Amino acid sequence: MEENYKVKVGITQGDINGIGYEVILKTLSDPRIVEMCTPIVYGSPKVAAYHRKALELPPMSFNIINEAGQAEDLKLNIINCIDEEVKVELSKPTAQSGEAAYFALEAASTDIERGAIDVIVTAPINKHVIQSDKFDFPGHTEYFEKRLGKGRKSLMILMNDVLRVALVTGHVPLVQVPSMITQADIVQKLRIFNYALRQDFGIIKPRIAVLSLNPHAGEEGLLGNEENEIIIPALKDAEEQGILCFGPYAADGFFGSGHFSHFDGVLAMYHDQGLAPFKTLAMEEGVNYTAGLPIIRTSPAHGTGYDIAGENKASEESFRHAMYQAIDIFNCRNRFKEMKSNPLRKQYFDKSGDNEVLNLEEEEKED
Amino acid sequence: MEENYKVKVGITQGDINGIGYEVILKTLSDPRIVEMCTPIVYGSPKVAAYHRKALELPPMSFNIINEAGQAEDLKLNIINCIDEEVKVELSKPTAQSGEAAYFALEAASTDIERGAIDVIVTAPINKHVIQSDKFDFPGHTEYFEKRLGKGRKSLMILMNDVLRVALVTGHVPLVQVPSMITQADIVQKLRIFNYALRQDFGIIKPRIAVLSLNPHAGEEGLLGNEENEIIIPALKDAEEQGILCFGPYAADGFFGSGHFSHFDGVLAMYHDQGLAPFKTLAMEEGVNYTAGLPIIRTSPAHGTGYDIAGENKASEESFRHAMYQAIDIFNCRNRFKEMKSNPLRKQYFDKSGDNEVLNLEEEEKED
Repeated sequence: MEENYKVKVGITQGDINGIGYEVILKTLSDPRIVEMCTPIVYGSPKVAAYHRKALELPPMSFNIINEAGQAEDLKLNIINCIDEEVKVELSKPTAQSGEAAYFALEAASTDIERGAIDVIVTAPINKHVIQSDKFDFPGHTEYFEKRLGKGRKSLMILMNDVLRVALVTGHVPLVQVPSMITQADIVQKLRIFNYALRQDFGIIKPRIAVLSLNPHAGEEGLLGNEENEIIIPALKDAEEQGILCFGPYAADGFFGSGHFSHFDGVLAMYHDQGLAPFKTLAMEEGVNYTAGLPIIRTSPAHGTGYDIAGENKASEESFRHAMYQAIDIFNCRNRFKEMKSNPLRKQYFDKSGDNEVLNLEEEEKED
Repeated sequence: MEENYKVKVGITQGDINGIGYEVILKTLSDPRIVEMCTPIVYGSPKVAAYHRKALELPPMSFNIINEAGQAEDLKLNIINCIDEEVKVELSKPTAQSGEAAYFALEAASTDIERGAIDVIVTAPINKHVIQSDKFDFPGHTEYFEKRLGKGRKSLMILMNDVLRVALVTGHVPLVQVPSMITQADIVQKLRIFNYALRQDFGIIKPRIAVLSLNPHAGEEGLLGNEENEIIIPALKDAEEQGILCFGPYAADGFFGSGHFSHFDGVLAMYHDQGLAPFKTLAMEEGVNYTAGLPIIRTSPAHGTGYDIAGENKASEESFRHAMYQAIDIFNCRNRFKEMKSNPLRKQYFDKSGDNEVLNLEEEEKED
């Protein structure tokens, strides 16, 4: 990769009736952004202009292009992916806004697949109205896993400056959580997490904390057996695979005592356990990263924000950090690839007992 | 209550092998403490001296008394409740430490019952070694409910300067949580919470936020039905009883957005959901208050701290705040009693349609 290469950041517009364009425009209006990357918005110049006016933001000059190859450095590039006649209805979930969000996603996915962009940053979608024959997923994460995952499993990581949190179970009713916690799943998530921390964050030997399912980490079985029967065996298993994992920790004390600051990642058992403390610590800068896939995709940690759409109240902090993180991860991954490309190969002699074999492809196969 | 009355604060020693005495001694070593209350430690002068020396704290002068009636203002009073020969074994749970904790609790309970002290602040106990024929409870809260509750139900409130959190379910395995969430229980907890906020914290019309059980508040049924079937009906029921309750709110956004600051209390559905964000916000000053009972009891939010016992590492902040809160609640309750003692009685005329009856005893009967 040449010295001053500018990462091509594909930005999908998300739901056009929410705060997506607001956070995109506010982020891109800082002139320094084009010094660090080449942004390409997948959306609609017309809708962008509509939002800019509605929000009374200062004029911005976009470079309207037909395909990513025409993107220019130091410019705000935008590709029209949708019907010119689309109607913006602020704060309302509409079939048109769902379709527009989908078209932008598809265009960016096609482009990242053929190498025309380097990373994708997605503005929030409305998970209800985007559903169609073509988009039948609970959210972005599952879409990218299927569309661009090449069979790999993804792991959602929520992160800010002090914390990276991943979940064993995600958007499921609480009643289903205990039965979904399995040893195999925990080990798999730990493997993906561990590899992502190495490849994407440049941490040579990551330390991962694992939370307990039950209060007080089960209090020696008094408050539940999942710790002894599932989580601790999973930790042992992962440890044998060379992963530095610790726990299980009771969530309240773990976050309350600041213990989390000793770890590179935290694996929580379920949604609210991980995300409530995470957002309590730092809602504004929260970034959602879809780890484990061949492509790099980040997004802000917030939703469509219908309640404040068009009111110029949304903070672009989270979106800005999503862009920063995507760029950082892209650079980290390249360095990682470079470091691994030409390692010193050990010499093995045919002597008894020395059956350790260096497998340079091992890492590539991580799920 | 006379103007300069000093609240008599009974302090139980808790587990003698943990950090209980450390936080008690550090709190009492501030000379200003005897200006705001009259402390009476239920424990052992000998054990107190042992800890003081082990921790290398400066000398302190205790007024050793035989019963609470002898307590003197401006002095640190201590009552010996246990066998002189008890052995302190730092960081170890022992049968002796369990028994010693129990004796102190019993002595303080007897004294608060007969009016010899005004409030109880408990140092942490070890829930395992305290168990015996006489003490067969999961913890302090249940003990006080049975011993001094006069049939009333208690509610554990965790609080600091910015937040008061209560739980619908407490120390139970996560798998049992969904089946334990009932409409009747939520309403009962809301009633106790509401009354405590009025009586003990002087909030005339408290606003209580209720969290959802499922992620994203169930996302309109996609992620669980308990919100629609149980929690929302409970909120309506409580509202009809005159309680200002709101929700159900998704826990992550609720804490992340700072929305909690608009409420006087937060009712969480289960342990980690309420306590992980609570402790994330403020571990050090956390205070545990047993609301709903005729007596007033607070405690620090931490445990026995065996891992740092005797090392002079424990912070007394939480214990100090527990004392402050107990004193504040005592004064609030008295003002509340005073305000209610002689209200203006409405005059009712025997006219049709006016069937509203003022029931001045209503509040006393709150569960």
